[in-house]
Amino acid sequence: METIGFIGTGHLGYPIAANLLKAGYGVKIYNRTREKALPLEQLGAVLVNSPEETAVKGGIVLSLVADDKAVEAIATAALLEALGQGGIHVSMSTISPDTSRALAAQHLQQGVQYVTAPVFARPEAAEAKVGNAVISGNTAAKERIKPLLQAGFAKHVFDLGEDAGSANVLKLIGNFMIAGAIELMAESFALAEKNKVDPRVAYEMLTTILFPGPIFSNYGAMILDRQFTGNPSFSAALGLKDMDLVLQTARRSYTPMPLANLVQSRLTTLLAKDIKDADWIALASGALEDAGL
Amino acid sequence: METIGFIGTGHLGYPIAANLLKAGYGVKIYNRTREKALPLEQLGAVLVNSPEETAVKGGIVLSLVADDKAVEAIATAALLEALGQGGIHVSMSTISPDTSRALAAQHLQQGVQYVTAPVFARPEAAEAKVGNAVISGNTAAKERIKPLLQAGFAKHVFDLGEDAGSANVLKLIGNFMIAGAIELMAESFALAEKNKVDPRVAYEMLTTILFPGPIFSNYGAMILDRQFTGNPSFSAALGLKDMDLVLQTARRSYTPMPLANLVQSRLTTLLAKDIKDADWIALASGALEDAGL
Repeated sequence: METIGFIGTGHLGYPIAANLLKAGYGVKIYNRTREKALPLEQLGAVLVNSPEETAVKGGIVLSLVADDKAVEAIATAALLEALGQGGIHVSMSTISPDTSRALAAQHLQQGVQYVTAPVFARPEAAEAKVGNAVISGNTAAKERIKPLLQAGFAKHVFDLGEDAGSANVLKLIGNFMIAGAIELMAESFALAEKNKVDPRVAYEMLTTILFPGPIFSNYGAMILDRQFTGNPSFSAALGLKDMDLVLQTARRSYTPMPLANLVQSRLTTLLAKDIKDADWIALASGALEDAGL
Repeated sequence: METIGFIGTGHLGYPIAANLLKAGYGVKIYNRTREKALPLEQLGAVLVNSPEETAVKGGIVLSLVADDKAVEAIATAALLEALGQGGIHVSMSTISPDTSRALAAQHLQQGVQYVTAPVFARPEAAEAKVGNAVISGNTAAKERIKPLLQAGFAKHVFDLGEDAGSANVLKLIGNFMIAGAIELMAESFALAEKNKVDPRVAYEMLTTILFPGPIFSNYGAMILDRQFTGNPSFSAALGLKDMDLVLQTARRSYTPMPLANLVQSRLTTLLAKDIKDADWIALASGALEDAGL
C-alpha cells in the first residue's frame, strides 16, 4: 500500500496515525515532540525530522496540529516542493476558513492540492473509527483521500464542495453547537438541582425523548459526574481557541452570535482560573458555580 | 369505561380530549370559549358550562389551560367540592412549580389529589400519541391516571416522585432546552450562510452525526424554511410565558441562567414587533435578522 506522510501525533493525531498503520499504509511521521510519536515505530511508522521529509513526490501528507500558526509553520516551501505536482496536503486541523483559503492558493502555485478535512471525533471515537469528517477542496483530490479518512477515523464523510474554507466553517459550527449544548445542559442541571429535582432524572428524560445522540448523552454524563479535569481529551485551551475562531469568523462576516460570546466567556474563565488539565466540558462549571453548586 | 372531566380544549387540549373520546372514555368538557369544543360533541363529548360540572365524586378531571392564573381560575372551591374525597385533578398546564405546590396543598384539604402532568408534545405529536409526559404527585393517584395519559397523548411517562412541583420544573427545563437549541441553530445557520456554506448541508451534517432526534430535525427544518408565522401550534406569547416561568423559578432559587435570559429576550422582541401569528420557533429570526439575513 501507499506510503503517506503524517504531521502531528497529538491526542487526536496519534490514534489516527495508528489506525492508518494498522490498515497497512506506510506512514512517515513528523511530530514536533518526537518522543510522543515513538511508540508508533512499533506499528511500523518511520519517524522523520522535518515536515518535508514526510512527503514523497505526488503523494499525500496529512497534518493535524494545534492552530493556524502551527499549520502555517509546517506548510513550508520545502514541504510543498517535496509534495510537488499532483501532491495533496490534507489539513485536518481546526483552523480559520480564511487561513485554509490562503494556504490552498499558495499550495496550488506549487501544483499541490490543499484539502480541508477537519475531524469530528474525540480521541476514543477516532480510535474506534466512528468519527466523522467534513471535507472541502479539489474534487479529484477529495476522492483520492477519502479511503484514508475512513481508514483513519471516519464513519461518515460529508462533502462541502470545492471551497477550502467551507469544511472549516462547518467544523467551527459543530464545535460551537457542542459548546452551546454544554452550556444549555449546565444551566438546566443547575436549575433542576436548585429546585430539588434530581439532575439525573432530568438527564434521562432529556436524552431519551428530546435529545438522543452522542453529544447530550456523553457530555451530559460528564457534567453529572463533574468529569471536568484530569485527563482532558480536548482541553479548555483548545476549546477557547475554537470559540475564538468562531467569533473571528463571525466578526469578519458580520454575524452577531451572543451565545458564542457566552461560551467563549465561560472558557476564558477556565483559563483565568488556571485550572490544571481542564477539559473543555469544564465550561459547564460556570453555570453550576454561579448557582453556588 | 369511566367518565372523566376535561378543562381546556386549546391547540393541545383538543387533540388529547379527542383521543380520550376515541379510546372510549366518557368526557365532560368545559372550555372558556365553548365553540372551540363543539366539534368534540360528534365524538361523544358532553359540553358543560363550568369547571365543576366536569367532575364526578371521586373521579378524575384533567385540565390544560394557558397559565398560572387560568389554572387558579378553574381550580375553584366548587370544583374541589365536586371532585371530593378520592378525586384527582390532573394539571397538565405549563405553570410555576410553586403554584402547583400551593394548589396541591389546597386540593388536599378537600381530599382531592393534585397530580402534575405537563405535556411534552406539539399538537401533531399529541394527536399521534407520540408525546411524552412527566408526572409528579401522590403515588396511588399517579398510577390511576397513567392509562389516561397514554390514551390521550403519551408514549413515555416519566415519574418524578411525590413533589407536585417537580414535574413543572422538568417541563420548564425541557422548554428552555428547546428554546436554547433553536437559538443555537439560528446562530449556526446564520454563520454558515454568511460564510457561503449552505445551511442545509450544515443541517444535514449536524442532525445526522451530532444531534439526531426530533428537536433539531423538526425545528431545524422550520428555521431553514423560515416557517415562523401562519398557523402557530405553540405561539411566541406562550413561549415567552414559559421562559418567564423559567427565569422566575431561576430567580427564586438563585440560579443565574444567561442563556435563558437570551432566549427570553429573543421572544420579547417578537412580541415587541407584534408579529402576527408568530410561532415560538420565530425566536430564530433574532440571530438571522441581526446578521442581516
